[in-house]
Amino acid sequence: MNVVDKWHKYVEFLDATLLDEIIDKDAVFFSPVVHSAQRGEKIVKKYLSTAMALLNNGTFVYTHETIQNGVAVLEFELEMDGVFINGVDIIHFNDLGKITEFKVMVRPLQGIMMLKELMAKSLSAPT
Amino acid sequence: MNVVDKWHKYVEFLDATLLDEIIDKDAVFFSPVVHSAQRGEKIVKKYLSTAMALLNNGTFVYTHETIQNGVAVLEFELEMDGVFINGVDIIHFNDLGKITEFKVMVRPLQGIMMLKELMAKSLSAPT
Repeated sequence: MNVVDKWHKYVEFLDATLLDEIIDKDAVFFSPVVHSAQRGEKIVKKYLSTAMALLNNGTFVYTHETIQNGVAVLEFELEMDGVFINGVDIIHFNDLGKITEFKVMVRPLQGIMMLKELMAKSLSAPT
Repeated sequence: MNVVDKWHKYVEFLDATLLDEIIDKDAVFFSPVVHSAQRGEKIVKKYLSTAMALLNNGTFVYTHETIQNGVAVLEFELEMDGVFINGVDIIHFNDLGKITEFKVMVRPLQGIMMLKELMAKSLSAPT
């Protein structure tokens, strides 16, 4: 199973061991909201698992996918509390099947504002 | 010259005849800010030309490109008044070399807010 298939499987089952398999120890995460990068396996996994726990609400679906030269672009859509959210995961991976960079962009503005608020709440919650 | 090359040439020279060549008459534009689609050649060209006139400020550069199955994903970066803007153009094109759908997503939030304000000003200016 390649790294993109493993990511899809992670999104479906939210199985943390799959995330452990595919996130490189020096991975970098870029959020839709903040400019600065989040660096290192631990923080990247925290952002991704927090985001997917929120987004995976039964309406989340990937609508398009392009994979070329170590970059996968996965477009997604979902609805959350009546708000439409459309976004892309831009995933850079290496020859070892590890994700080295994970960037998310989201539209429209209403969707970003909702995600921003929900992510802030979830990330600050005790784990 | 294929449709993506023509788009790149348009971005470089802002030559409206190139845009006329590549935008399908039933094209649809999705902005980073608003949910609803903008439909039809005329409005799509207006959005794209207004956006590129703003963005093409000497710092605009495409950083990655994937093209597959009639979809081109072009990632870009620029700086505007000290604000970093990172985005993607997701361009669907048909076998006739016409763009049928053009979607833009932008990050971070500060970049979207700046674009939103500048686009609103430009679109409402007398032409």
